[in-house]
Amino acid sequence: MTSLKKLRIVEVGPRDGFQMEGRFIPTELKVETIDRLADAGLRDIEAVSFVHPRVIPQMADAAEVMAGITRRPGVRYLALVPNLKGAERALDSGVDGLRLVVCVTETYNRNNVGLSVDQSIELFSSIVRLAEPAGVPVSAVLAVAFGCPFEGEVPEDRVLELAEEFLNRGSAELGIADSAGLAHPLQVRRLLGRLGAAHPDVRKWLHLHDTRGFGIANAVAAMEAGIDSFDTSLGGLGGCPIMKGASGNIATEEMVYLCREMGIETGVDLDGVRDASRTMSAFLERELPSRVLAAGTREELVARNSN
Amino acid sequence: MTSLKKLRIVEVGPRDGFQMEGRFIPTELKVETIDRLADAGLRDIEAVSFVHPRVIPQMADAAEVMAGITRRPGVRYLALVPNLKGAERALDSGVDGLRLVVCVTETYNRNNVGLSVDQSIELFSSIVRLAEPAGVPVSAVLAVAFGCPFEGEVPEDRVLELAEEFLNRGSAELGIADSAGLAHPLQVRRLLGRLGAAHPDVRKWLHLHDTRGFGIANAVAAMEAGIDSFDTSLGGLGGCPIMKGASGNIATEEMVYLCREMGIETGVDLDGVRDASRTMSAFLERELPSRVLAAGTREELVARNSN
Repeated sequence: MTSLKKLRIVEVGPRDGFQMEGRFIPTELKVETIDRLADAGLRDIEAVSFVHPRVIPQMADAAEVMAGITRRPGVRYLALVPNLKGAERALDSGVDGLRLVVCVTETYNRNNVGLSVDQSIELFSSIVRLAEPAGVPVSAVLAVAFGCPFEGEVPEDRVLELAEEFLNRGSAELGIADSAGLAHPLQVRRLLGRLGAAHPDVRKWLHLHDTRGFGIANAVAAMEAGIDSFDTSLGGLGGCPIMKGASGNIATEEMVYLCREMGIETGVDLDGVRDASRTMSAFLERELPSRVLAAGTREELVARNSN
Repeated sequence: MTSLKKLRIVEVGPRDGFQMEGRFIPTELKVETIDRLADAGLRDIEAVSFVHPRVIPQMADAAEVMAGITRRPGVRYLALVPNLKGAERALDSGVDGLRLVVCVTETYNRNNVGLSVDQSIELFSSIVRLAEPAGVPVSAVLAVAFGCPFEGEVPEDRVLELAEEFLNRGSAELGIADSAGLAHPLQVRRLLGRLGAAHPDVRKWLHLHDTRGFGIANAVAAMEAGIDSFDTSLGGLGGCPIMKGASGNIATEEMVYLCREMGIETGVDLDGVRDASRTMSAFLERELPSRVLAAGTREELVARNSN
């Protein structure tokens, strides 16, 4: 099984989670949540998306959020950007890294960002050129890499081809996303094994959704394939604006607790994450999907029963 | 990873799922559900528990349920029994197999069935003697094998010791249950690897709860350790009457879909299971936990988007 001793958790709730919420989350609450996640030990936080407010109104205050947070030393605040204008705004706001989502199928890319894959590739190079003078790394995220809601199966060769392309164009790391929650563990292990063999020295991260209940199983399969970085979302917030039935990202609480149980170091304090999730749950007036948030830890279960 | 080509799914929803429900499920609906699950291809169904109606009122009609079902050829209808009286009633009702739950920790066994573990061992032998003339196999289920809500960590050696004991006393197969949803994949693989090495010729099955979101990940880890039989529950129904925050069994839909995606044969028709779950969901007037039930399959997602 996995011999991993340490892994990186990238908190994407403030971006992927918040953007799905219909109710506008006040800027102060966004800032407070990001600050608490940093205090909880998260060293990489996808804090905002610089997308046009007409497309995602929830992200209209991205610049204010970036200006409001208290920068913790050693914490990287990342932004998702859909275009050059967004990248400019992101750089102006002082982010530490940019991520560009490119869907590996033409249909999905057109639906998601209105571009052909080739256009996204060119856009990526433009963003790299823009960010270079500021010394800000840019990474590509290959979305719907395990299955497309429009085209169905996605050829693995196409994912490998695009990985190569973006790395050649200066992608600092490489994100692989199961945007539609269609991946299964054998597939994860196979594709990430191939990517690992092709690009052993490139840091790859996995972005999973728990739409069909296989999120954590896929994460474990990826660990077995050598992946040591995962996007997760506080409370399991998230989804996909153009996909019916798509549920949240894997929950930060579940990943932190899983790693603790399996003896893998994350540096993240579970209680700190849960506090942030509970505040968000109270604001949204609903329970969040995270089961560790609901059920608690082994020690808490034993303590409850000994009273 | 797993090289399994085929696995057995034991449907336990009519017992482990139904017993948790406060609202009495009419006998006809229980019978209809069990018949539909058999029609969907499930060949092993834990249909009832012969427990005293004061303890679990939902199971008061166990004999009527067994009398009401239409026996499908090749389908084994199993019963959980807590004591000798229950075993007598179960045998009278014509079940095809008996299961006795024994908790591997003293505290939990006393809380769950009011017996010491030694008393449960003696009880098991009495039940085996009772069932032998009828040719009905009896199996022990080692509960809380991965962690106890009262005692916390459970020594693996104790699980192995009890496995040996029950096999010596005539246990046909051996069930291992993560009753409190505390297991993690490394632990599953380690314990089941040891059990497999000690008893390679005994069929072992795993009973998982998804309390902390690791249910499917644990199932995959168990497959890697050679386990080819799993208890699952339609819609992910289930829980534990004496454990706060305990959530359902892993969902039959998720296991069937996972296996289909991973190329493992189960013989179970996903649509048939989902029909039964939807009927139950309508009766209970709430959504069931199964995410495959909510999100549907890959093909359905693509079909929805092509309209």
